Amino acid sequence: MIKAYAAFEPGGKLQPFEYNPGALGDHDVEIAVEHCGICHSDLSMLHNDWGITQYPFVPGHEIIGTIAAKGTHVSNLSVGQRVGLGWHAGYCMTCHSCLSGDHNLCAQPESTIVGHHGGFADKVRAKAASVVALPDGLNAQNAGPLFCGGITVFNPLLQYNVPPTAQVAVIGIGGLGHIALQFLRAWGCRVTAFTSSEDKKKEALSIGAHDVLDTKKPSELAAAAGRFDLILTTVNVKLDWNAYIATLRPKGRLHFLGVPLEPLDINVFPLIANQCSVSGSPVGSPAGIATMLRFAAQHKIEPVIEVFRFDQVNEALARLASGQAKYRIVLSHQ
Amino acid sequence: MIKAYAAFEPGGKLQPFEYNPGALGDHDVEIAVEHCGICHSDLSMLHNDWGITQYPFVPGHEIIGTIAAKGTHVSNLSVGQRVGLGWHAGYCMTCHSCLSGDHNLCAQPESTIVGHHGGFADKVRAKAASVVALPDGLNAQNAGPLFCGGITVFNPLLQYNVPPTAQVAVIGIGGLGHIALQFLRAWGCRVTAFTSSEDKKKEALSIGAHDVLDTKKPSELAAAAGRFDLILTTVNVKLDWNAYIATLRPKGRLHFLGVPLEPLDINVFPLIANQCSVSGSPVGSPAGIATMLRFAAQHKIEPVIEVFRFDQVNEALARLASGQAKYRIVLSHQ
Repeated sequence: MIKAYAAFEPGGKLQPFEYNPGALGDHDVEIAVEHCGICHSDLSMLHNDWGITQYPFVPGHEIIGTIAAKGTHVSNLSVGQRVGLGWHAGYCMTCHSCLSGDHNLCAQPESTIVGHHGGFADKVRAKAASVVALPDGLNAQNAGPLFCGGITVFNPLLQYNVPPTAQVAVIGIGGLGHIALQFLRAWGCRVTAFTSSEDKKKEALSIGAHDVLDTKKPSELAAAAGRFDLILTTVNVKLDWNAYIATLRPKGRLHFLGVPLEPLDINVFPLIANQCSVSGSPVGSPAGIATMLRFAAQHKIEPVIEVFRFDQVNEALARLASGQAKYRIVLSHQ
Repeated sequence: MIKAYAAFEPGGKLQPFEYNPGALGDHDVEIAVEHCGICHSDLSMLHNDWGITQYPFVPGHEIIGTIAAKGTHVSNLSVGQRVGLGWHAGYCMTCHSCLSGDHNLCAQPESTIVGHHGGFADKVRAKAASVVALPDGLNAQNAGPLFCGGITVFNPLLQYNVPPTAQVAVIGIGGLGHIALQFLRAWGCRVTAFTSSEDKKKEALSIGAHDVLDTKKPSELAAAAGRFDLILTTVNVKLDWNAYIATLRPKGRLHFLGVPLEPLDINVFPLIANQCSVSGSPVGSPAGIATMLRFAAQHKIEPVIEVFRFDQVNEALARLASGQAKYRIVLSHQ
C-alpha cells in the first residue's frame, strides 16, 4: 500500500489516504519520496479549476526520491538511485513529438497528478522514461521545484537557442520567476525583472536581475521601449500585453509560461512592424530536464524554498495560496 | 520635372501632377518607370487609413524600370540597368537592424509612398541600397508585385528557415496569397489554401495548392486539427484565430502578413500546450528581395496580373477596391 494525502472533493482538505498501486509495470519505477515541491498547478488541480481533476486527488509533481523498485524492462535507472519526477509520469514514446525528442508535447502523455496519484505520499510510480537522475552537486531537498517550475523557465532557452547576448526580462518574481532570474544570469544574459512588489525589487537584484522595472509604472515600461529580445511571463493575470510587446526589440518574443485565463487582446500591427512573436511552452522533455539539472549543478542554481513536514500539507497549501511564500514550498519527509 | 498622378485629399481621384525632385543625392538613383503594381496599402494610404498620408499623394511601390541617372556614390547599379523598387525607398544603413541585414526592420526607414512620391509617375527616386536589380528570366511587366506582395510572403520562409518538409497553409487567396501558393509549392512544401470563395478553390489548386479548405465551414477547420507547421494569413479581417491555432502542429506558427485592425483575442493555454507562436513580419530586406527574385526566376514564378495604362489609374484603383482583381493590378507605360 502507498500512504498518501488526498483531497476527496474540489478544494477539500487533504487527508491521509492509502491506495494499492497494483503490480509494477515492466517500464515503471517506484520512487520512495523524500521531498515534494508544491506548484500553483497543484492548487489549480485541487480546486478543479481546469475541470480535469479526479478524486481522491493526490497532488505533488516536483518529486525527489530514490528508486525503490523497477520493472523488468527498465534499464536507464537503478534501485537506490536518487531521481526526480515532474509534471509528466509517462509518454507514449511513439508519437511524432516523442520521436522528435519533444516528449513534453506528446499527444497522449501521462500526467503525474491527472488520473494518477502524485507525490504527496511515501511512494509514487511513473514510467522510467519520465524519471530523471539527480546529478551530484544538487541539494535533494530543494531540487524538486526544478522538475516543474525550473524546467518551465529553462526550456525556452533551449527551444529558441537564446544566445547569452540576449536581453531578457521576466514578468512576475515568484516560484517560477526567481528560478528564471538565476538561469538567465548564469546563461550570460542581461536580465531585467518586472515586478509590482516593492519588497521583491531588492530580492530580484540579489537573485540575479541586473535591473528591476515596476509593472505598475507605465513610465518605466515606456522607457524600456525596444529593449528586450525575450520576455518570459510567469504570471496568471491579465496585463497590458501590448505595452510589453512595445518593449521588445525587432524579432523579439513575448513567451507565456503562466496561464492568464483572459484572451490576449494583441494588436497585429506592432507584431508585423517589428517581426515579433508571441508564444508559450509547457515544462520540458526528459533530455531538457537532464540538461537543466547539469547546468544548475554547474552554476549552483537552487530554488529558494520554505520547508514543511508532509503532515503540515494543509498549512503548506494555505501558505502557497496566500502568495507570501518565498519562493517555493517543499514538503519533506526528513 | 517628374510627371506623376497624385491625390490631393483623402480618397480623392488621382490627377496629373508634376513635381521638381531637385538635385539627385549622392546615394540616390532615378528610375525611369516602366510598370508599377497597385497594392492594397496604396488604397489604405490614399484614404489616409493609417493617419500618415501627406498630400499631394503619389501612390505606387511595386515599381519596375531602368536606371535613368545615379548619384556619385552609387556603385551597385548602372545607368540603363533594369531594377525594381518596393515599399522602402531607403534605410538608415547604420541602426542595429540595418547592420544585421534586416533593413526592412530599420528604425528610421524611408518609405516609397510616405512623405515621398511613389511610382505612379514617369520617374521615381530612391536610395540605391533599396533598389534591386531584376535578374534575367523574369518578365518585367508582372515582376513589380514581387517587390511588395511577393517579398511579404517570401520573407517568412527565409526568416524562420522553413524546411521543404513543412505543411503550410495560406489564408486568403488574393494579391498576396496567390504568390504565396506558388512560392510554397516551389519550396517543396505541402500547401493548403484557405478560402471562402467558391470560384477561387479550383484556381488555388491550379496555382499551387495541394488542398483547399473552406474558411466558412467549421467542420473543415476542425478536421485539419494539428496539421500545419506554418499558417500565413494575408487577410485584413477578423477570423476565429483560435480555430486556426487549433490546426497547428506542435511548435507551429500562425504568421500575420495582412493587418486585421481588431485585436487578436488569442487564448493562452493552447499556445502553451503545443508550444505555438503567433507572429508577423513586414516585406523584406534588399538581400531577401534579391534571393526571392532569383528563386522566382528559377521556378518561373509570376504574379498573375491585370494590366491598365497609367492614364486609367482611377479605374485600376476602383477595380482593386472591388476585390475582383485576379490577382494583382499593374499599371504599364508600354
